[in-house]
Amino acid sequence: MHPQKPPLFFDPPEDSHQLLPISAIGEAGLLQVVQRYCPAQVVGDDAAVLAVPQGQLVVTTDVLVEGVHFSNLTTPPHAVGWRAATANLSDLAAMGSRPHSLLVGLGLPPSTPVAWVEELYQGIQACCAPWGCQVVGGDLCRSPQRFVAITALGSVQPGRAIERKRAQPGDWLIVTGPHGDARAGLELLLHPEQGSIVPTAEQQLIRAHQYPHPRLDLLPLLAAIPDPMRLAGMDTSDGLADALVQVCQASGVAARIEAERIPISEALQQVFPAQALEWALYGGEDFQLLLSAEPSVAQYLLEKLPGAAWIGEVTGWDPQGTVRLDNGQILSRQQAFQHF
Amino acid sequence: MHPQKPPLFFDPPEDSHQLLPISAIGEAGLLQVVQRYCPAQVVGDDAAVLAVPQGQLVVTTDVLVEGVHFSNLTTPPHAVGWRAATANLSDLAAMGSRPHSLLVGLGLPPSTPVAWVEELYQGIQACCAPWGCQVVGGDLCRSPQRFVAITALGSVQPGRAIERKRAQPGDWLIVTGPHGDARAGLELLLHPEQGSIVPTAEQQLIRAHQYPHPRLDLLPLLAAIPDPMRLAGMDTSDGLADALVQVCQASGVAARIEAERIPISEALQQVFPAQALEWALYGGEDFQLLLSAEPSVAQYLLEKLPGAAWIGEVTGWDPQGTVRLDNGQILSRQQAFQHF
Repeated sequence: MHPQKPPLFFDPPEDSHQLLPISAIGEAGLLQVVQRYCPAQVVGDDAAVLAVPQGQLVVTTDVLVEGVHFSNLTTPPHAVGWRAATANLSDLAAMGSRPHSLLVGLGLPPSTPVAWVEELYQGIQACCAPWGCQVVGGDLCRSPQRFVAITALGSVQPGRAIERKRAQPGDWLIVTGPHGDARAGLELLLHPEQGSIVPTAEQQLIRAHQYPHPRLDLLPLLAAIPDPMRLAGMDTSDGLADALVQVCQASGVAARIEAERIPISEALQQVFPAQALEWALYGGEDFQLLLSAEPSVAQYLLEKLPGAAWIGEVTGWDPQGTVRLDNGQILSRQQAFQHF
Repeated sequence: MHPQKPPLFFDPPEDSHQLLPISAIGEAGLLQVVQRYCPAQVVGDDAAVLAVPQGQLVVTTDVLVEGVHFSNLTTPPHAVGWRAATANLSDLAAMGSRPHSLLVGLGLPPSTPVAWVEELYQGIQACCAPWGCQVVGGDLCRSPQRFVAITALGSVQPGRAIERKRAQPGDWLIVTGPHGDARAGLELLLHPEQGSIVPTAEQQLIRAHQYPHPRLDLLPLLAAIPDPMRLAGMDTSDGLADALVQVCQASGVAARIEAERIPISEALQQVFPAQALEWALYGGEDFQLLLSAEPSVAQYLLEKLPGAAWIGEVTGWDPQGTVRLDNGQILSRQQAFQHF
């Protein structure tokens, strides 16, 4: 179901040109490099002219900053590009919308190797291309800190968007896959001394951090749900607990979650058994989806989506949006990743 | 023709809340502040769902970094927002396209005052609102350096886009207004000791730097040009010389420019007579448009667009895109603003 996975680490640059800093080839030179990753017909003007996708337009922006969201220690440039693209495509998937195109704004210190920028674009392209999505524009500018600001455009038919506020009592709550792996992978990258116990499992966790997959494989399944479609949800990029609380608060409902049913990979269970549930709830960046749907629709998605799991249900209306684990603990957003 | 101009400097914050750093109100608090500047129906999901504008979609991204494109010395936050919006709307104007919506990605140090962010959004909104354009989404994230990454969406009818590559021999070259003022305003802000000679003129130049206007007032005039419309051009954000060379290179034509016909404001002439032509050619950030059109169309635009001026003509085909001043000097992009 997922597109073919890209290589894990830096490919050696093909020519010495790429080892130069971008200051050596200048803005015009760098533009030529990155424009190779755009379709020729959209390059060369002040803005890109696109065919309008059918339906309603869906737009989202995500910004990743070096030292905050990625670093050379944890994320080679190919993976920075992949993750930046995933963050955006995951937002589109969470709306039930089909990706159309991306714009890429980059802040770069002049000492950045040309190869770094090329690998970044290759990572973006590798993530997008399987979904028919292309880079159609962007901006390059000097900055003391590297950052990547991606905007994604997609489309959805009217009445077919997934929204946070549409959960109702009686809904089942499902997730599209395991949680906690990305957090565990980050731990292994930041503290390699914790690794080397179960190498295959550790590689899998690192891969989950560096190359998360947007769950756009949900889209073809949505097409089979008859009108009127009512599906609530969001992605779990800031953690599963955060997504549960946000959906319940937006919908004004209470939920009961069976902690044991939250899918945790065998790899995570093997390498970090003590932290597994904590990271599944609060780790973030797994880029799975949390969905709330009436049982028949949820059942259908559970059957068709590999890795999906039932984790609980919506128990009633509740303006507070209380989410309770079966041990009585009430989940909060406090432990989720806070930018400020 | 231009929308009402906003106040030049910081309004004092209305309540003490705004003097707090954003770290004191946290990400959720800051989100509440900025979401006041978005229409309610697009807020609260992973992405915004929009009505698709008619025609083709036009998209562009511009990134502004503190210390590179703006600083507290030269640009109060309201003006940072205004200029960031103008940079994008000017790209849409340069395509002959109607603005539709903006997405705003912000990188912010946690010590940033809430008031700074509010003023920034007020500046963005003040620039966009007169053109029916709204902020529909964004992202906030921590960053050691402030930056603003704006993506603008617009629309254009098929066959009605302005493109760089469509200039032809015999075309007149026109600009929509005076050049060099923004560069002069920056000079006065960076070196205030140069000022206080002609205060009114100096205020006008500073204003040109802080509050440049996107030339969207061109759009209604385009509607009167019959099909097939052939209009070449781009905005002069990186300087008039840069725009001339880019249009000529993209079109494969040579041009002859009469330096004396380049419109220079009385204010610039008064305050910096020695630098006026140099800054008009290479200063940048005036956000005027350079257009290349057959004489009858150019004549019509000159009559209807206040401040527009004939500056030269396209003399023939030329793969090098040579642009020659009437004194024989050949213009190059070398002196234009280079990011790297």
